[in-house]
Amino acid sequence: MRVEVLAIGDELLDGRVADTNTLRLAEALGAVGQKIIRRTTVTDDRGVISEEAKAIAGRDTTLCVVSGGLGPTTDDVTSEAFADLLEVSLERDEEQARVIEERITSLGRELTPNQLKQADRPEGARVLPNNKGTAPGFEVVYGGCRFVAVPGVPREFDAMIEAAVVAPLREAGGETPRVLLRSFGLVEAQVDKRLLPIKTRWPAVRVGYRAHFPEIHVSLKAGEDHLEDLNAAEGFCREELGVHLFSDTSGPFAASLVALLKERGETLAIAESCTGGLMASLLTDVSGSSAVFEMGVVAYSNRCKELHLEVCSELLASHGAVSEAVVLEMARGVRRRGGAAVGVAVSGIAGPTGGTEEKPVGTVWLAVVSDQGEKTRRLSLPFERDRNKMISAYAGLDLVRRHLIR
Amino acid sequence: MRVEVLAIGDELLDGRVADTNTLRLAEALGAVGQKIIRRTTVTDDRGVISEEAKAIAGRDTTLCVVSGGLGPTTDDVTSEAFADLLEVSLERDEEQARVIEERITSLGRELTPNQLKQADRPEGARVLPNNKGTAPGFEVVYGGCRFVAVPGVPREFDAMIEAAVVAPLREAGGETPRVLLRSFGLVEAQVDKRLLPIKTRWPAVRVGYRAHFPEIHVSLKAGEDHLEDLNAAEGFCREELGVHLFSDTSGPFAASLVALLKERGETLAIAESCTGGLMASLLTDVSGSSAVFEMGVVAYSNRCKELHLEVCSELLASHGAVSEAVVLEMARGVRRRGGAAVGVAVSGIAGPTGGTEEKPVGTVWLAVVSDQGEKTRRLSLPFERDRNKMISAYAGLDLVRRHLIR
Repeated sequence: MRVEVLAIGDELLDGRVADTNTLRLAEALGAVGQKIIRRTTVTDDRGVISEEAKAIAGRDTTLCVVSGGLGPTTDDVTSEAFADLLEVSLERDEEQARVIEERITSLGRELTPNQLKQADRPEGARVLPNNKGTAPGFEVVYGGCRFVAVPGVPREFDAMIEAAVVAPLREAGGETPRVLLRSFGLVEAQVDKRLLPIKTRWPAVRVGYRAHFPEIHVSLKAGEDHLEDLNAAEGFCREELGVHLFSDTSGPFAASLVALLKERGETLAIAESCTGGLMASLLTDVSGSSAVFEMGVVAYSNRCKELHLEVCSELLASHGAVSEAVVLEMARGVRRRGGAAVGVAVSGIAGPTGGTEEKPVGTVWLAVVSDQGEKTRRLSLPFERDRNKMISAYAGLDLVRRHLIR
Repeated sequence: MRVEVLAIGDELLDGRVADTNTLRLAEALGAVGQKIIRRTTVTDDRGVISEEAKAIAGRDTTLCVVSGGLGPTTDDVTSEAFADLLEVSLERDEEQARVIEERITSLGRELTPNQLKQADRPEGARVLPNNKGTAPGFEVVYGGCRFVAVPGVPREFDAMIEAAVVAPLREAGGETPRVLLRSFGLVEAQVDKRLLPIKTRWPAVRVGYRAHFPEIHVSLKAGEDHLEDLNAAEGFCREELGVHLFSDTSGPFAASLVALLKERGETLAIAESCTGGLMASLLTDVSGSSAVFEMGVVAYSNRCKELHLEVCSELLASHGAVSEAVVLEMARGVRRRGGAAVGVAVSGIAGPTGGTEEKPVGTVWLAVVSDQGEKTRRLSLPFERDRNKMISAYAGLDLVRRHLIR
């Protein structure tokens, strides 16, 4: 099978949006033994789109995933371009028009004619329903190539590609046995170095990495006839990644901590300075986190640290807010105030300002406190504000995870 | 000028790496009045690369930025492909070979023959030095198109493109007049409907949208000779978007609120239930937010709402946590506790569980409280947990913004 991608949208070429769809599509297709050999990204230009589709079919492509240009606005012209290619007119799919109408009115919004335009597709095309959004997709065959056109919005793209492309391939039996391990606390080069021996010891196993900042995901794949090698390589990975391995399911980082807290019957209270609420937000991204999360306090100011986390002002004056002594008091304070089994705190300098020679930007102190003991950790992060925030929030949750599993 | 991108590398098509270079390239080119009209992503295949370069030149492209395939490994074949295209042989640039040798040995590594291969380039090509890495780039002209080939590593790519492409264009002078307006509270179709008249009233102005959930960005562009039209269309946009327009700078949503709070000399305290810290986290993404942000409390449990936000238990029992009465008490409580000028609170059911017939998933109450008065708002959101969280956090900050500007 020869697979290409045709990504459509001015926003992909003018610096507004990075095309991450191809990344996830490649991963999903890889799991069913297929790979993308070319991606073409073009603007919302009717003539260019149909010309490009013709060229793609002319290269003996079997499947082309087309994304974008199916929305309600006048610059969405993918349906028109494919109608041009097939030399047919557009026709409205009445069922989809009804679905769109229901969706819009159920949201209490007014139905506008441009909304209904999304139900238009090239005559004879197969309609692909969209359960996550308004714009349906379509599927046509031209010059021996199957074109599957779906919206570019990632969650819609993923769901529709899964239904129209990946699931049928999987059912046809092309799934490669595969292991996915998620790690935190090592950079890609470190993971690579630790796992290098796999290549020589189990050559039938393919190792892949994906940096999903700040997580590193490791995938292992092998043919049906090398399952033993795959299992052995997986065991090796688990040993090498050690405490850095946090999940072997598809769940996100915080979900593994919520599961662990539930399992232990523990509750958590969080005090944050430099992460500004992000640690609590990551935790509460997990449905069911309310069972283990007692309280979060975002204490930017010293006044707030004194008043609501019971950090004494002498400590703040003598050690500074970003210090081991203060972060420990913050963790104790929020644990006491929140009535939680475990208290965790973070205090640091996310940047770009606020650094000093002694405590440069990226200096972060973490503390965890429970009946099992207290632990602190200092980080020196090299990133910019957003990444410093993210990695500090992860590290705070990770400190709790490690405190619980030791 | 007609600009294309040719991105080379298996890793861009197999799910390992997202091409973010185009994003930054487009932004840099946009600032000097140029835009990318097509990007082609291909594997490390010598024949495919030279064929594609021929096709690019055949489309009357003026400039093609080529990225990737310049490294030391055997699958890096960009130089070979362009030598094929130009029907010349490869020649080693002795100065670059010396630079590579110095760089490798200064890092204490052993110099291998494949490292020196990076100094090979198509005969007659101009060499582009690389100050951030080992592999130099090159520049050739074929079929009237200037091909600038640089490594795909982002920091090397950025520095070399700045030096070889962007800086010369900047010096030659050429910025495209452009307006960027950011809105919140309308969906894309609603924005489109309101701005539809622009197309007929000012046809020289090009309108673009970008959904950056939950923001909608509107961009207006026009040629140098249609500045009056651009100004008129901008005025029309501002009127039509009204209170939904929150920023006309490049700053994110929360930055406009931080700026507004600073301007008014007000401080903010935030109480969150269903948004779980996200509102505070969005605010603290903004550098300098510490000047206006007093305190955040994430109060998931009723116990925490009573104890730390001074919501009385009778109110919680009679109205429930997700109610106008309770969210108002939360806003008052956090304002008082935080000693802030403005208090904002959110309480809702993010889902997927926790909904009832009377209060289904997506029911969210918001309140803002200050000396200027009190205001509440009820939302009924149709999304899943993550999006309900995000839109509620935005709506909370937006309630503060509107409270301040009225």
